[in-house]
Amino acid sequence: ARPRVGYFYTGKTQSQLLTDKVKRMTVKSYQSIPVVVEESASAYDAICTMFLEDVGTLFVVNKDGVLIGALSRKDLLRASLGNQDLSAIPISVIMSRMPNITFCHSHDLIIDVAKLLIERQIDGMPVVKETDKGLEVTGRLTKTNVTRAFVELAEGQFD
Amino acid sequence: ARPRVGYFYTGKTQSQLLTDKVKRMTVKSYQSIPVVVEESASAYDAICTMFLEDVGTLFVVNKDGVLIGALSRKDLLRASLGNQDLSAIPISVIMSRMPNITFCHSHDLIIDVAKLLIERQIDGMPVVKETDKGLEVTGRLTKTNVTRAFVELAEGQFD
Repeated sequence: ARPRVGYFYTGKTQSQLLTDKVKRMTVKSYQSIPVVVEESASAYDAICTMFLEDVGTLFVVNKDGVLIGALSRKDLLRASLGNQDLSAIPISVIMSRMPNITFCHSHDLIIDVAKLLIERQIDGMPVVKETDKGLEVTGRLTKTNVTRAFVELAEGQFD
Repeated sequence: ARPRVGYFYTGKTQSQLLTDKVKRMTVKSYQSIPVVVEESASAYDAICTMFLEDVGTLFVVNKDGVLIGALSRKDLLRASLGNQDLSAIPISVIMSRMPNITFCHSHDLIIDVAKLLIERQIDGMPVVKETDKGLEVTGRLTKTNVTRAFVELAEGQFD
């Protein structure tokens, strides 16, 4: 029988419907623009780039534009404790390096990336695309993006 | 009529039910332990505390334990650009200071705090309790906590 309240009984439970919504929330819809630096940059350059671009994670690429490293605010703060001149520290010695970088793809689900961010205790990761030469960085997915996804899911606005 | 599938028609729409769940997700259930430093600490001390305690936000309290400031990794990175000795920089000159600190209460909803984190572009905020002397810090609520809340909501595990 058709209910009188303007919607249909679909045979799905509340949690199934929620799961359906979550299964449509992909990285592509929530990712940010990536900010990359070259391996030859100094820690000082990297911190300046973070402030100029207003991001907390930088990705390091080689001359072919292939992902070779990642830098967090935490990595740079650790370097600043060293009491050395930050412009004399190459980022290549303080960055996380492939293959130790957690990454995701634009078709991945936000829920899976959110679990990875928690599990690996990181603030963000690159969104990548495989190429012949290696991984090309196409986006950035951070806890800020997940926080936005939470607000949308909680408010049911994203349908 | 009673449906045959083991649950009842409540007269609520899907989004109302979701809203009900969200309205039970309070700061209290997701907050972390706060890490505080005294106003007399140096930027160097503060960075060390962040690494030792593995947090990205510190709260600054006076001798009565009352909240007077907050320090983020971003504040400390900015200080490290100055090319000064970090142990000679008092945190009182680089911290955000009351009343310019966004805070929340343990009974607040995660959804409201999530919106504040996005709107104010901050990574975390203190959970406070009003006392005669001022605000006492009882917790810490960050984008990491919101990310956990998202995972629980998305997986429907928190009922």
